[in-house]
Amino acid sequence: MTSTQLVFDSAAAHAAWIDQQSALPQGFRVGSQQFDFVPVEVGTAAKMTVNVLALDQPTESFAAVFTRNAFPGAPVIIGRDRLKEAQLAAVVINNKISNVCAPDGVAASEQVCAAAASALGIEPEQVLPSSTGVIGWQLPVADLSNALPLAVQNMQAESIAPLASGIMTTDLYPKVRSIELGGGRIVGVAKGAGMIEPNLATMLVYLVTDITIDRVAIRRALQAAVSPSFNAMSIDSDQSTSDTVVVMSSNKINGVDEADFTAALTQVCRDLAEDLVRNGEGVRHVIEVSVTGAPDETVAREVGKAVVNSPLVKTAIAGNDANVGRIVMAIGDWLGNHRPDLSPAAATLHIGEHQVLADGVFQLNPKTEQALHQILLSAELYPSGQPNDSGVFEPALRYPPHEKVVPIILDLKLGDASATVVGADLTHHYVSENADYRS
Amino acid sequence: MTSTQLVFDSAAAHAAWIDQQSALPQGFRVGSQQFDFVPVEVGTAAKMTVNVLALDQPTESFAAVFTRNAFPGAPVIIGRDRLKEAQLAAVVINNKISNVCAPDGVAASEQVCAAAASALGIEPEQVLPSSTGVIGWQLPVADLSNALPLAVQNMQAESIAPLASGIMTTDLYPKVRSIELGGGRIVGVAKGAGMIEPNLATMLVYLVTDITIDRVAIRRALQAAVSPSFNAMSIDSDQSTSDTVVVMSSNKINGVDEADFTAALTQVCRDLAEDLVRNGEGVRHVIEVSVTGAPDETVAREVGKAVVNSPLVKTAIAGNDANVGRIVMAIGDWLGNHRPDLSPAAATLHIGEHQVLADGVFQLNPKTEQALHQILLSAELYPSGQPNDSGVFEPALRYPPHEKVVPIILDLKLGDASATVVGADLTHHYVSENADYRS
Repeated sequence: MTSTQLVFDSAAAHAAWIDQQSALPQGFRVGSQQFDFVPVEVGTAAKMTVNVLALDQPTESFAAVFTRNAFPGAPVIIGRDRLKEAQLAAVVINNKISNVCAPDGVAASEQVCAAAASALGIEPEQVLPSSTGVIGWQLPVADLSNALPLAVQNMQAESIAPLASGIMTTDLYPKVRSIELGGGRIVGVAKGAGMIEPNLATMLVYLVTDITIDRVAIRRALQAAVSPSFNAMSIDSDQSTSDTVVVMSSNKINGVDEADFTAALTQVCRDLAEDLVRNGEGVRHVIEVSVTGAPDETVAREVGKAVVNSPLVKTAIAGNDANVGRIVMAIGDWLGNHRPDLSPAAATLHIGEHQVLADGVFQLNPKTEQALHQILLSAELYPSGQPNDSGVFEPALRYPPHEKVVPIILDLKLGDASATVVGADLTHHYVSENADYRS
Repeated sequence: MTSTQLVFDSAAAHAAWIDQQSALPQGFRVGSQQFDFVPVEVGTAAKMTVNVLALDQPTESFAAVFTRNAFPGAPVIIGRDRLKEAQLAAVVINNKISNVCAPDGVAASEQVCAAAASALGIEPEQVLPSSTGVIGWQLPVADLSNALPLAVQNMQAESIAPLASGIMTTDLYPKVRSIELGGGRIVGVAKGAGMIEPNLATMLVYLVTDITIDRVAIRRALQAAVSPSFNAMSIDSDQSTSDTVVVMSSNKINGVDEADFTAALTQVCRDLAEDLVRNGEGVRHVIEVSVTGAPDETVAREVGKAVVNSPLVKTAIAGNDANVGRIVMAIGDWLGNHRPDLSPAAATLHIGEHQVLADGVFQLNPKTEQALHQILLSAELYPSGQPNDSGVFEPALRYPPHEKVVPIILDLKLGDASATVVGADLTHHYVSENADYRS
């Protein structure tokens, strides 16, 4: 959670804030182009947007981390190779089709890189491809190649907002975060993750900066930044075939040291991770589990994830039911099955300021139950409702009204390690979105 | 899946079949009593049922397995101790309160055992306690002690059906399975598991037999039986604080060898496990994932569980959308994060008879998509609908119409090990039940 909590009372106020966040650092340009095509797998017309994020000059200062899924998309396979290249000059990103396990998928993504390079006047190996969308379908290479010169023509150097919007699919609003540091900026955009992009379950994050940082340092900084942010976030426990986080520097602003850069990059990543959860379709509560007293950081993080991934905890919170029994069940489930050598018999559990477990024994009464219910009510992003005439649950708001979370605080009393994990509740809207999305 | 598939065209036909399954083996009696009480944690009236399952004579031939949750209920803590006793004579089971992490919980359960022993004329150490219900509340020991003599008075030796009904909470129907073997019988009843008992997430299974089998053999048989049944079933990935499976023999019928007994016990457990999934509230599709070609059984089982536990797979199947991309995502997610040394690049995937992945590449076209959609439609237990006036989704049927499953068949092409995992879809009814149950 950021120290300053944002509150928006209208979509216009949120849009104005997004615009203010979106100023591009020096040395970058962004362009997008939408087009129609016919996926061969279904034979009916569809729309795709292709986006280009380019540097004015190729850079050695770039880093990327990718999904660990054993069926990675073709762009991820290529992206891992690109890390060995001397320089990167652009990222080309399409939505609608993720190019995962598709016939000749790697060749298709390489052809797209070549088309982008041709339009930009750079080498194909200097282009990192990125795709999100239906798994298993083939990229429309010819249509993409025709659209890319138009996307390049549309490029401008003022705002990253067109990219934040161009990678949206079912997102409620674009996600942009930025920070000022030493006269330069770090700006990041994000899409996806679980509920946010239910058919695809893909998280894509692109970060750009004009702060000078060398190749080794930017890679170290990205590794440090993803751990407490994107790797400490879990929406529906599924890791996609295409998850990608990329950072590039134009190296225009000197004088910032690596520690400060890493801290700032981590803050932008942490804010984007929370935005991803908060923007998840169907998400009505963001859940923040702070685990202390763990023997090591892995235990702290995995116990926290076990809580936010438990369907029973998630549905209880969706219903504003502070069912602390389910929280304890989820903690005990993970520990008993993964670390049976650890006993949580001395553990304490708080919801906000209210203690509900002391020395492994519940401390419950009607007054506490009522107080917990009020905490859940006040953390709702929007009230629940009935489905519309098509049987689909719609969110009442298309902007984030506030940054409140449901605060679950666990002290295992087993050591000094800690971690904070962010997750989401499980609502009717999630089921509607995921059961009905593709068909 | 059993070789003969049951089909019921009415609740009456299902009830008649349950009655026929329920004949008690020789040497057992069953009695139940419901009563009113006031949980101190909420201060408003509630109902509880206490059930007694007793042997005519104490037996040395008993076995039990319990949850691995690190916050086990007091009855589980006591039950583990009871395994060391020379003889067992009864099980006493209450619903409504699970006695987990409650103040003085172990002492409370021991008092209940003492009251049951007194009414039955046996020793307290010969009684195994069992509780399911809200986590964190305290047992009403005095009320339970008053009700137990009445439950004992109600005992009869004809049918296990009163126990099957007496442990029900939000179950749609009682779950009973039996098998005849060598002139004797094995009969089992089950409740709970995830969606079936959403607030409690507890599975309780009691198996009784009159087939003679010694203490060592019955314990070996139960371990063998739970592995491909209850441990290969996953409804919502949560393991409760109270899961318990107990088997007892009255040793009346001689002449059955251990291998035949184990096979028969395994069949009863497997049938009950499928019944638990099929009866889960909100469950509209039972999913069966058969994994072959795994390097070991753990990989086979965990990959299967990853598929049936993926919220994205579960919601797609709920919507009759054969979204095979999500299935591949779930497989790759588990492998990439747990066994990155294994590549599924040669894997094949079938839905029923239809191949959708060959050598790690999708084989999709509009005709296949339509065939997969029909498989999902035909495996529905009941059609989906709109919520009632209270916003709650109700099942259209209160009995299982058939035993059909959604057949997902994966060959990893990495070895000779295999496993079959049974799971469930994720519907609006599940969210309603779990978000609204306790409050």
